[in-house]
Amino acid sequence: MPASAGAVLRLIREGDAVTRTEIARRTGLARSTVAQRVDALLAHRLVYELGGTTSTGGRPPTALAFNHEAGTVLVADLGATHARLAVSDLAGTLLGEVASDLDIALGPQRVLEWVHECFGELLREAGRDPAGVHGIGIGVPGPVDFSRGEPVNPPIMPGWDGFSIPAWFAGRYEAPVLVDNDVNIMALGEHRMHWRAARHLLCVKVGTGIGCGIVVDGHIHRGEQGAAGDIGHIRISGHDDVVCRCGNVGCLEAVAGGGALAERLSAAGHEAAHSRDVVRLVRAGDPLAIRMVREAGRTLGEVLAGCVNFFNPAVIVIGGDIAVAHEQLLAGVREVTFRRSLPLATRDLRTVPSRLGDRAGVHGAATMVLEHVLAPEAVDNAIRASVAA
Amino acid sequence: MPASAGAVLRLIREGDAVTRTEIARRTGLARSTVAQRVDALLAHRLVYELGGTTSTGGRPPTALAFNHEAGTVLVADLGATHARLAVSDLAGTLLGEVASDLDIALGPQRVLEWVHECFGELLREAGRDPAGVHGIGIGVPGPVDFSRGEPVNPPIMPGWDGFSIPAWFAGRYEAPVLVDNDVNIMALGEHRMHWRAARHLLCVKVGTGIGCGIVVDGHIHRGEQGAAGDIGHIRISGHDDVVCRCGNVGCLEAVAGGGALAERLSAAGHEAAHSRDVVRLVRAGDPLAIRMVREAGRTLGEVLAGCVNFFNPAVIVIGGDIAVAHEQLLAGVREVTFRRSLPLATRDLRTVPSRLGDRAGVHGAATMVLEHVLAPEAVDNAIRASVAA
Repeated sequence: MPASAGAVLRLIREGDAVTRTEIARRTGLARSTVAQRVDALLAHRLVYELGGTTSTGGRPPTALAFNHEAGTVLVADLGATHARLAVSDLAGTLLGEVASDLDIALGPQRVLEWVHECFGELLREAGRDPAGVHGIGIGVPGPVDFSRGEPVNPPIMPGWDGFSIPAWFAGRYEAPVLVDNDVNIMALGEHRMHWRAARHLLCVKVGTGIGCGIVVDGHIHRGEQGAAGDIGHIRISGHDDVVCRCGNVGCLEAVAGGGALAERLSAAGHEAAHSRDVVRLVRAGDPLAIRMVREAGRTLGEVLAGCVNFFNPAVIVIGGDIAVAHEQLLAGVREVTFRRSLPLATRDLRTVPSRLGDRAGVHGAATMVLEHVLAPEAVDNAIRASVAA
Repeated sequence: MPASAGAVLRLIREGDAVTRTEIARRTGLARSTVAQRVDALLAHRLVYELGGTTSTGGRPPTALAFNHEAGTVLVADLGATHARLAVSDLAGTLLGEVASDLDIALGPQRVLEWVHECFGELLREAGRDPAGVHGIGIGVPGPVDFSRGEPVNPPIMPGWDGFSIPAWFAGRYEAPVLVDNDVNIMALGEHRMHWRAARHLLCVKVGTGIGCGIVVDGHIHRGEQGAAGDIGHIRISGHDDVVCRCGNVGCLEAVAGGGALAERLSAAGHEAAHSRDVVRLVRAGDPLAIRMVREAGRTLGEVLAGCVNFFNPAVIVIGGDIAVAHEQLLAGVREVTFRRSLPLATRDLRTVPSRLGDRAGVHGAATMVLEHVLAPEAVDNAIRASVAA
């Protein structure tokens, strides 16, 4: 509640009050206190003076602006077999990017060494100093204890269970490291870049497996143990003959995930080892693959109909490998959600393909880190720490 | 962000700063501004002076306290066939209460006339003035457009669709009227009275129908159209022969709701017209009724397992008529949620019977209204309005 330096920075960033006089009026702070707080922000190069604004007389007040060049953020969106890394400025604009195949099963040491090398390369290419890194964001394909930055029993990440990713980076960068599930950062990216007006949004990733990122009132909903959104293991009626890797039967992922579809296409004599092969076959017009993706959409729609009744979102974004064949998949999803959800909940519901595609994760991770490091309290702590040092 | 009179009241209410000096220190406000804000709160009788606190020397500073006697809140929890009304002080303590049979299908005019009469009676009995009513909270058994206080297509409330409950009360009390779904206020009541430490909570009401209140980070999640929590119409596998009143087949409510159980017991020759009759039979040890409630618990558990995977709550509270037979129902719910949800999400999950029982709704409605009328902005607006008048 106290209008701290961080709170003043927020007013300036959002353009709500950009002169010392306006800030004093908006916050009710004494003018001497405002001057103190602005000085701290100037000393940290988080704001700069734009020069005089137009005034009705007397000395023109100096306008202040947020300095998004004051530092950078490093992000890595790690999937099961693929990774995308980027460096952004403090406004979230990407300054450089790299994508590569990467096997997450190599374990944390080898994967993070490689990530670290790429981060160094990205900074060099962008001409930025490692000392200017304000935060690091990492997305991983499994459940995460967000408060600790540790994967928790991730089924496809051998060696990562309980591994502290922030601790690994601690000696390398003096910046906070945030770790989240890959689908959560994807949901945040889609929300902030394209669906800000939606209060509640679901973002479903259909790749080898199936997961869901949940945005409630603009914030990621992680659940009490960070396990929220794990819709891949919700039971589908009439498929008790399908055994899932989790040990249960009839799980959504085992019935309609990209891995399951590839397996069934392969058993039918097609060349298909991965969810991306399913998309290739759909694009080539293969009737069996098209039928299977359409049916997978209906199956996914059955689970999402339940989520719509339970959660009543404004938007469902469908992304991931399989979603590239989105017309067929979305048709199935829409068909069943509209049939099985209540009219009030589907009246204005939009079910749409991902707009950011492969980049949703890095945009979301950058957003997550920026909202963390530029939050009023974080800015205040950073200022206090530097005064103490 | 500005530390307004309302924000100062919050500090005093929560005991974070109870003298003018402490308030100035906490907020960074000028002492003259603090004095002004405290004076406004004193003038509105929202705080009072306790007298001097112990001090190390000089004139002892005067401690301030929240005056929960400054007004009252009226609440009504309206069910399909039953209602409970209460009057509380500004701390949420119930000063008087009344419960009665009431047919919601009588329509808004007759029902609200009756509610209004009861409110008058409750105030008289508690010796309180209608002018001191700070807010009114109404729970109804159907979906509500919360921002307008209007039921939206409520299936069991003929005549209420789009009826503005706040407009009806407008000439009768000068106080804000908040209207919400009965399960939402029940969830809020259970959370604030017994499960404050849980960030995320589900509260399931199993009566004639089945509904769910959702608490996310301490706040009611109503969804984009106010339709969230309508789990009664999620499809249950293997029950496509059961037709629901909503027009779909296999809905949870049509399979496991109290109305459906009563119907099946009645068809088997038992005397059962209502969900409460099912409970009576269970208590009398009727084997068929016990088996049916246990099985209803498993069916409910199947839907809740999906909700647990999706939402990852800390606590699931089960309430409503049928829940009075809670051992049998909870056993079924726990059995299936633990089998069908992921270990991480069920590790610390608690599935518990409602502690507030029939009173959850009135406590929740009082909480909803108090958090609204004592929110800093609402207090500021009230003070501004009285200055303008």
